[in-house]
Amino acid sequence: MSGEGDIKLLGMVVSPFVVRVRMALHMKGVSYEYIEQDLFNKSEILLRSNPVNKKVPVLIHGGKPISESLVIVQYADEVWSGKGASILPADPHERAVARFWAAYVDDKLFPAYIGIMKAATEEARAEKAKEALVGLASLEEAFTQSSKGKPFFAGDSVGYLDLAVGCNLFWLEAIRKMFGVTFFDVGKTPLLAAWAERFAGTEMAREVVPDADSAVVFAKKLQARFGSNTSAK
Amino acid sequence: MSGEGDIKLLGMVVSPFVVRVRMALHMKGVSYEYIEQDLFNKSEILLRSNPVNKKVPVLIHGGKPISESLVIVQYADEVWSGKGASILPADPHERAVARFWAAYVDDKLFPAYIGIMKAATEEARAEKAKEALVGLASLEEAFTQSSKGKPFFAGDSVGYLDLAVGCNLFWLEAIRKMFGVTFFDVGKTPLLAAWAERFAGTEMAREVVPDADSAVVFAKKLQARFGSNTSAK
Repeated sequence: MSGEGDIKLLGMVVSPFVVRVRMALHMKGVSYEYIEQDLFNKSEILLRSNPVNKKVPVLIHGGKPISESLVIVQYADEVWSGKGASILPADPHERAVARFWAAYVDDKLFPAYIGIMKAATEEARAEKAKEALVGLASLEEAFTQSSKGKPFFAGDSVGYLDLAVGCNLFWLEAIRKMFGVTFFDVGKTPLLAAWAERFAGTEMAREVVPDADSAVVFAKKLQARFGSNTSAK
Repeated sequence: MSGEGDIKLLGMVVSPFVVRVRMALHMKGVSYEYIEQDLFNKSEILLRSNPVNKKVPVLIHGGKPISESLVIVQYADEVWSGKGASILPADPHERAVARFWAAYVDDKLFPAYIGIMKAATEEARAEKAKEALVGLASLEEAFTQSSKGKPFFAGDSVGYLDLAVGCNLFWLEAIRKMFGVTFFDVGKTPLLAAWAERFAGTEMAREVVPDADSAVVFAKKLQARFGSNTSAK
């Protein structure tokens, strides 16, 4: 603890949304107690803290729970505004653009790549892969507009949209390993491909982001449990 | 115009998300040029301003477009922070709670009530009605926590979550007229039922919210066009 009060994070190591929050807390330089949750045997503290969605991540700060990763990231930026790096841009229009694209990532990109894993047929998988690639092509545009020629969506260093996209990278790599879908094509989305390498190389990502293989192991565990079609290529 | 620069809103009168933004602009006391859009014949300005989703509302402020109603509401609150009423609460935890429930409204309540209209069978309709009522029961809890015994989610006057829920009321009334589904049961969700009456009675709602009958007319137009099962009871 470093004086911010009692801070707990209910998480699951392989959840991209938990990784997003851990990156935000890392950016703010906030220490916290991390409590791993079992998806198949939900704890009393999780059910009590997030009775509506019963999902991780949940940040519990001074006894008060907060759910939904993007809500938690904004909360962290606001409540610890004097600590660490700023996550949201200062300019209202830039904040709006970052929020728009972060919502896009969760509403369009995430369902597409989860769809690749859940697909029952090769046709369905190809369809979802196409959706994900269309989503990434839009993000390439967003990168051009947001970064203004600088290395990250937020400019010289990582910010809200970098976290929103970047927390998914280890899963995209896991899906590449499992199904041979390449998401970052230097020919099609060169800026995003270079960004993804830069992002993965940040001290924060190296510290917080799990290995893609842990996502592969988790996906195979789900497959064994539910018989979903997540066999490796 | 009242000195805030060039402000345009691309909208559709019967869209709850457009109503949400109009209420926010009303709260901030901002004048703007309203440009009605045709869902079936998208304008060049809409396609250029929101090329990703091609949807209303789009706020164009000083030539810069912003999409997604909750993003626009937060933008308005930030960029005109010195004008009109505050929309988001000042306290970071209260902001997080309001953002969580606003996302819940859009992710759970809206799809459920749209599902009632699109349902192909009575069974499917009953299922979606049940989902909507479960969602409202959760919102009754949220109201208790947020309002702390005061008249609105935000306390003494309307705020972010009031707008997020309240913009849907005229559609819920339209669905009641069309399908006989009663959403605000004084027996089951007494606080929400009383809140809905108070909200509809605000000067802002009376000024900005369209009549439920205009939503009924629009739903029937969609039915005529797509043959969806939206016949009146």
